[in-house]
Amino acid sequence: MKLYDNAFAPSPRRVRMFLAEKGLSVERVEIDIASGANSRAEFLAVNPLGEVPVLELDDGTRLTESLAVCRYIEALHPAPPLLGESPLEQAQIESTVLGLMFRLYVPTTHAFRHTHKFWQGRIPQVAAYGELARQQVLAEWQRLDAQLATSTFIAGERFSFADIVAFTTLEFGKVAGIRPQPAQTHLLRWREAIAARPSAAA
Amino acid sequence: MKLYDNAFAPSPRRVRMFLAEKGLSVERVEIDIASGANSRAEFLAVNPLGEVPVLELDDGTRLTESLAVCRYIEALHPAPPLLGESPLEQAQIESTVLGLMFRLYVPTTHAFRHTHKFWQGRIPQVAAYGELARQQVLAEWQRLDAQLATSTFIAGERFSFADIVAFTTLEFGKVAGIRPQPAQTHLLRWREAIAARPSAAA
Repeated sequence: MKLYDNAFAPSPRRVRMFLAEKGLSVERVEIDIASGANSRAEFLAVNPLGEVPVLELDDGTRLTESLAVCRYIEALHPAPPLLGESPLEQAQIESTVLGLMFRLYVPTTHAFRHTHKFWQGRIPQVAAYGELARQQVLAEWQRLDAQLATSTFIAGERFSFADIVAFTTLEFGKVAGIRPQPAQTHLLRWREAIAARPSAAA
Repeated sequence: MKLYDNAFAPSPRRVRMFLAEKGLSVERVEIDIASGANSRAEFLAVNPLGEVPVLELDDGTRLTESLAVCRYIEALHPAPPLLGESPLEQAQIESTVLGLMFRLYVPTTHAFRHTHKFWQGRIPQVAAYGELARQQVLAEWQRLDAQLATSTFIAGERFSFADIVAFTTLEFGKVAGIRPQPAQTHLLRWREAIAARPSAAA
């Protein structure tokens, strides 16, 4: 297996953390997004959408979207379970992950794209919308802080892919000026616990 | 099982179509979003996020997010398979579904929310962003039209949950002025085929 990857983007980092938690390592191919390598013909032949991560299997089959990539890896390497064991647990973790994607990850990327200098001249920016997205993200972290008052991890008492999605999104949020607030003690406790896991360095 | 539902929203419609394709029916509780019933205490006690669909199991456990709800139903009622059979098929369909959600469904809802009169005064609207979202959706349908030239269904030669997500999003797009173009003959052929399935009336 081979992972088309990028060291700074949040989605491929989810896959690297997932692999590290499983004790797996795969060949990595770094795609330099900052210099536009993801938009050049060589990579567009791998993924016409120009997005990482892409997991390439030994027979050449390619999988995209971090959750789908991780679900495939989990099927081959079930231990430790990071996407749930029973059908109900699996649905609950998937529900939590999708909620994080829609209410946290998408608006974080939008806040970044619509307000950051990196994107000036590269895409049409609408700053007023970027600020709305940022406010939505801040409200969602506030909600998660309250939730983490009674829960060790994002999806309950066991570390899961939901923690990986939330942690990588929080780390990525810095580029859009989104950081946990000092009063968000539960969120800060959780972030420290996730950052201390060896997989956080992946 | 009981489904908290709304007749006009695209996400709960996915679950109704999924159930109909499986030949299943469950008790439905209509939540009148237009009159704000999803924001009132009675429903917030069911789902604090105020969103439908919610699948309530007989023991009171509640599941949100249409893809997670459908994955749970598929585990209990595997035939006909709508989320893939082998781990690879399951990952491929999940990847396709997530791509549709991020590149088609989310921007369709954003085009609706940021440009439609229904939302005036209810949420802060940024029309310039709504128009960008609409252009993104139109480009994505153009891409899918090309893809459907060589593929019977959205995720290949078999009907799947990906068709349900794409079809319900296309139908919902009308509210944001998004419609297939006469030249998109493959997209129109596919839409006609999905609309002719009994589940499309669900």
